[in-house]
Amino acid sequence: MSDEQKAGGPPAVTFMGSDNQAGAHPKILEALASASTGSDSAYGEDSLTANVKHRLNEVFETECEVFLVATGTAANALVLSAMCPPWGAILCHQEAHIHCDENTAPEFFTGGARQIGLPGDLGRPSIDEIRGRVAASRANGVHNAKPAVISLTNSTERGTVLNPDEIAQYAQAATELDLALHIDGARFSNAVVSTGASPADLTWRAGVDALTFGATKNGAIAAEAVVFFNKKFSEEFAFRRKRAGHLWSKHRFLAAQFDAFLGDDLWLKNARHANELATRLARGLSAIPGIELPWPTQSNEVFPVLSAATDAALKGAGFDYYEWPVMEGMVRLVTSFATDPQDIERVLQVARSSSLAA
Amino acid sequence: MSDEQKAGGPPAVTFMGSDNQAGAHPKILEALASASTGSDSAYGEDSLTANVKHRLNEVFETECEVFLVATGTAANALVLSAMCPPWGAILCHQEAHIHCDENTAPEFFTGGARQIGLPGDLGRPSIDEIRGRVAASRANGVHNAKPAVISLTNSTERGTVLNPDEIAQYAQAATELDLALHIDGARFSNAVVSTGASPADLTWRAGVDALTFGATKNGAIAAEAVVFFNKKFSEEFAFRRKRAGHLWSKHRFLAAQFDAFLGDDLWLKNARHANELATRLARGLSAIPGIELPWPTQSNEVFPVLSAATDAALKGAGFDYYEWPVMEGMVRLVTSFATDPQDIERVLQVARSSSLAA
Amino acid sequence: MSDEQKAGGPPAVTFMGSDNQAGAHPKILEALASASTGSDSAYGEDSLTANVKHRLNEVFETECEVFLVATGTAANALVLSAMCPPWGAILCHQEAHIHCDENTAPEFFTGGARQIGLPGDLGRPSIDEIRGRVAASRANGVHNAKPAVISLTNSTERGTVLNPDEIAQYAQAATELDLALHIDGARFSNAVVSTGASPADLTWRAGVDALTFGATKNGAIAAEAVVFFNKKFSEEFAFRRKRAGHLWSKHRFLAAQFDAFLGDDLWLKNARHANELATRLARGLSAIPGIELPWPTQSNEVFPVLSAATDAALKGAGFDYYEWPVMEGMVRLVTSFATDPQDIERVLQVARSSSLAA
Amino acid sequence: MSDEQKAGGPPAVTFMGSDNQAGAHPKILEALASASTGSDSAYGEDSLTANVKHRLNEVFETECEVFLVATGTAANALVLSAMCPPWGAILCHQEAHIHCDENTAPEFFTGGARQIGLPGDLGRPSIDEIRGRVAASRANGVHNAKPAVISLTNSTERGTVLNPDEIAQYAQAATELDLALHIDGARFSNAVVSTGASPADLTWRAGVDALTFGATKNGAIAAEAVVFFNKKFSEEFAFRRKRAGHLWSKHRFLAAQFDAFLGDDLWLKNARHANELATRLARGLSAIPGIELPWPTQSNEVFPVLSAATDAALKGAGFDYYEWPVMEGMVRLVTSFATDPQDIERVLQVARSSSLAA
Repeated sequence: MSDEQKAGGPPAVTFMGSDNQAGAHPKILEALASASTGSDSAYGEDSLTANVKHRLNEVFETECEVFLVATGTAANALVLSAMCPPWGAILCHQEAHIHCDENTAPEFFTGGARQIGLPGDLGRPSIDEIRGRVAASRANGVHNAKPAVISLTNSTERGTVLNPDEIAQYAQAATELDLALHIDGARFSNAVVSTGASPADLTWRAGVDALTFGATKNGAIAAEAVVFFNKKFSEEFAFRRKRAGHLWSKHRFLAAQFDAFLGDDLWLKNARHANELATRLARGLSAIPGIELPWPTQSNEVFPVLSAATDAALKGAGFDYYEWPVMEGMVRLVTSFATDPQDIERVLQVARSSSLAA
Repeated sequence: MSDEQKAGGPPAVTFMGSDNQAGAHPKILEALASASTGSDSAYGEDSLTANVKHRLNEVFETECEVFLVATGTAANALVLSAMCPPWGAILCHQEAHIHCDENTAPEFFTGGARQIGLPGDLGRPSIDEIRGRVAASRANGVHNAKPAVISLTNSTERGTVLNPDEIAQYAQAATELDLALHIDGARFSNAVVSTGASPADLTWRAGVDALTFGATKNGAIAAEAVVFFNKKFSEEFAFRRKRAGHLWSKHRFLAAQFDAFLGDDLWLKNARHANELATRLARGLSAIPGIELPWPTQSNEVFPVLSAATDAALKGAGFDYYEWPVMEGMVRLVTSFATDPQDIERVLQVARSSSLAA
Repeated sequence: MSDEQKAGGPPAVTFMGSDNQAGAHPKILEALASASTGSDSAYGEDSLTANVKHRLNEVFETECEVFLVATGTAANALVLSAMCPPWGAILCHQEAHIHCDENTAPEFFTGGARQIGLPGDLGRPSIDEIRGRVAASRANGVHNAKPAVISLTNSTERGTVLNPDEIAQYAQAATELDLALHIDGARFSNAVVSTGASPADLTWRAGVDALTFGATKNGAIAAEAVVFFNKKFSEEFAFRRKRAGHLWSKHRFLAAQFDAFLGDDLWLKNARHANELATRLARGLSAIPGIELPWPTQSNEVFPVLSAATDAALKGAGFDYYEWPVMEGMVRLVTSFATDPQDIERVLQVARSSSLAA
Repeated sequence: MSDEQKAGGPPAVTFMGSDNQAGAHPKILEALASASTGSDSAYGEDSLTANVKHRLNEVFETECEVFLVATGTAANALVLSAMCPPWGAILCHQEAHIHCDENTAPEFFTGGARQIGLPGDLGRPSIDEIRGRVAASRANGVHNAKPAVISLTNSTERGTVLNPDEIAQYAQAATELDLALHIDGARFSNAVVSTGASPADLTWRAGVDALTFGATKNGAIAAEAVVFFNKKFSEEFAFRRKRAGHLWSKHRFLAAQFDAFLGDDLWLKNARHANELATRLARGLSAIPGIELPWPTQSNEVFPVLSAATDAALKGAGFDYYEWPVMEGMVRLVTSFATDPQDIERVLQVARSSSLAA
């Protein structure tokens, strides 16, 4: 039960709307404080930044190009602008974050490229749809946007994950169709934990050209890494980041977050905590009569379809979450590194009581 | 003497290149830690953000519209994009930060507007030059960029300041010429302390439409406020910020910095410290034979012209600073909230010794 | 039979792929020659341009703002950029020319706005779909593109037309939803002739804010008028046109085309010719067993579904046209002011013979 | 004396303000009429377009990539967008047409690149200035725009010309500095005639990467060719042109103009006529006491400094021309293919009379 709860008042709010409603992990905060002592070079010429690049090379078992920014929208839009010309098209799932939740950032950063949101199961764009759209666009030559990039999300916006084989299928299609392959990994940590695959296997070894690797939702205050495995896309990226206002002057405070995030496997521990609680929540909910989970829970997002009574009961108990317009009655519950296991128990208790009362 | 200095090794580096080489003030770090407890709404719907808006209304003695972002380049480019159409021109000093140090961010955010860098004393664009350029552009109708904004910097890139009367002269010209008036206040705190004028007198009471109010250089890790006094420019600014990737999901961590920055007058204390040390440094340097300071030191930046010997002596003693291409031998030394007074004494000692030896 | 046909060689090509495969009407060419005598002011300050504005005010029975450009893509993208902010969304039919055939021109000119292609019968976006998408976008606030414009095409990409009442229904929805209303009238002449409605009734009296009025497909060499009925959108349009490279220096040669186009009702005569031949073609085809026309022919485009044999027979006889991917076997045949009635007879003969042979 | 002059009325206007005030050459008009017979493929897939490409390969004695558009602003801005990244800088003379007369088209098409207008004699940017600006920008790394292109004009905005050796000096600097080299040849015909050099010697043999080759000012109604000698810049140019609305559907009407322009050396004949009359005008004016020509007349633009009395006399006699703000009393007089030699005599007569009266 949260600290804010007052006896006799309305119930304290328990935030389960998104993992970005959490605070920061104490180790991230300590890292900021530690980085703050003394002066250092600005704009990424500091030693912490060098260290983060080194760590990411280790995590991905390859030399990759790394650029840090503060938000996922910036990371995605910047990396897409490096992979897609202004007259290009980005093929993604129709529920992709870049398509539904980042306003027109991809359009802005690319100089006017187009996103094509495609249907597909489990939050993944259908490869058949990709092939069909590419063929149709190319048949129309200069008159249509030129397909340039496939962008996947892992874990997806439906809380499912892609394993290395599944990613490789997209990579194969991308190669055949002369497209680049990007992964929005705002919740990449959760995908790594869920699949048990190595970061390398989930990315470049499967044919991925560039990854947005998020720390914000998994314990940082504001830190995302753009990781290029294919260096042809990173050539002038430093200019892109600077002119977008995304190069921090006190850059070590971005680096410090990532340094702590990757140190002692904090990123994996945090994701494991979130995933485990989501699994527990999903199992508990699916055992309750009248509650459906239309697809498997594979990371830290749970999408139950609730009766109006259960929905009302949960809201009445102070739980904050979003309705999810995929189907009538569906809501989204998200766990994070900071989720209290007791809150999961409380959700289940309230849902069970409501179900029994029905 | 800095902590890193090792006995027997090369001298530790003492950073005086910019106030963005400093770390963060402890109160800023405490505020981050404090903001991190519990969960809260994302994207600026939290109570800390509301509090910062309230504090800024108080600081400026008026209801203003406030948007927080992480970098000065973002703040400047975003606010200019709200004030200048894509076919417009922004008139500024030829050494303005927006013109020389932010790559093509203003062009990017405005959709291709043009900056016109003008000469002028003390880091201020000459009002006669402004009038001349506006007349010439308008005489050429649609064939030339349409003058739309005057952008001043206060304190300026030369470490000088504008007082309310001086700003009002630009505002009067702006009104006559149908231009908007923006101030880049990356070092606004230093200007407030230096002029002794109130924030209101330095801005909207003098006719300013919008201000970029910087905290990063004065103790934050990464926090700048865009402050609109003229609300016609802020109408759809929330969309601009979002699509540029500058809306933080854990927005309270931006707000927490500003909350601490404005609380207990930390911003003024920090700026006072920096300004006083700069004044001490300027006085000391100008008393040394062979060192010239071509213009007055009015905030936290000092621009001495050094002999090659003095320059070499300072560098040999571990001082890090930039050559300043305004004239032969000129360098820039910047103080911050974190500058150690002993470092100022050391600069003066080394410079004096070098002078005596000459 | 076309002039190029050689005895004994392959059949001459008869172009029915689009009305832009036709040449120019002799009166347009005469007008160019006539405009060429003597010198005149450049950039639209000539008397012919003034005359065209006057003529358009008469045609539309109101004072409207008029800007001439050379291509339909330019006209559409420019006018949409004046009606939709960079973070806005343009709602149109999923087969709209702006969405499928103008590359990313709308994105480029608007600075990155998004087009949302919607389903709907007869080439019109469903009003229910419009309402649904606007509601969903608005529920997502700054995170999604902001719906700003409905763009219709009249006559539509399916060769159907909207009458004043039907347009007024879109206008009513636009008003309720705070959207602007644009019509792509690349084939507006054909819609006027087909509906029998006045240009005013088909536009501003029905609630239209701006029209792209095409002459190119109906007899000009390259001339389109952007016509603003709502002047709030035209305010700085002259700057938009100039910076896009669409202001002709010898502007009188654009104006001369429109002057001839509107003079002596050439635009209506040309469209009447094209519409009548299309009607004749549609009637003839639908009387042939095995040929289907899934929707009515209301302007100058005919969409029969052909058997493979008939398709092969027509191609073998030299007819050039596009396959139309709306359904298997569908093709598009387009008539123009220049179409020879004998070519229509020939199409019907070949199709009939092929049908009998089957 | 012009045809319009009425006995007893005000004098007819004689336009000498620009070569774009002229009409079109009869052969251009004939070519349009001729191209109009029959139907043909749209969007540049016609035989006339192929023919123009062939002709240009011959004119330049090399295989070059050719794209036609209708305006000089479009041609310049498009080609610069292919040569300069959005974060790049274009170095040109401070009086260059791209910098002073094309609004913000280069910024728009490049996605926000910057033009740097430099001083220099005779309408050419000083090579020393170029070197200085490149060095300064590069020293500032990502913080400043990245120098990418040198753009020259030939003949220049001062009516002077560069010969192959002079162009080669820019090319050498461009190579050393890793910049591309563009020539705005809105009046390239006049430069070819004036220098007597071959088109190849004035372009790719001297190291030029791309040329804007104008026909509009020299007899066309609206036709400019973008000519790429360095094909790395032309790779996706077709997409650029299309999305900018500069691909004509009835493309043969652009091609027809260029076909006639290049056929029978019309372009050289027209330019020779204009240059000769300008030379005659310049000689005559410089022989008149009180009239100065501060620099040589080398193409079809003459820049005399007139007394107020002479200026008034010329205007009173119906001559239309522009004041030229380079110096007090300077005006610009432009001849074209259509200039009547008697009008040159009249200018001289009026100027002489006015001089004698003084």
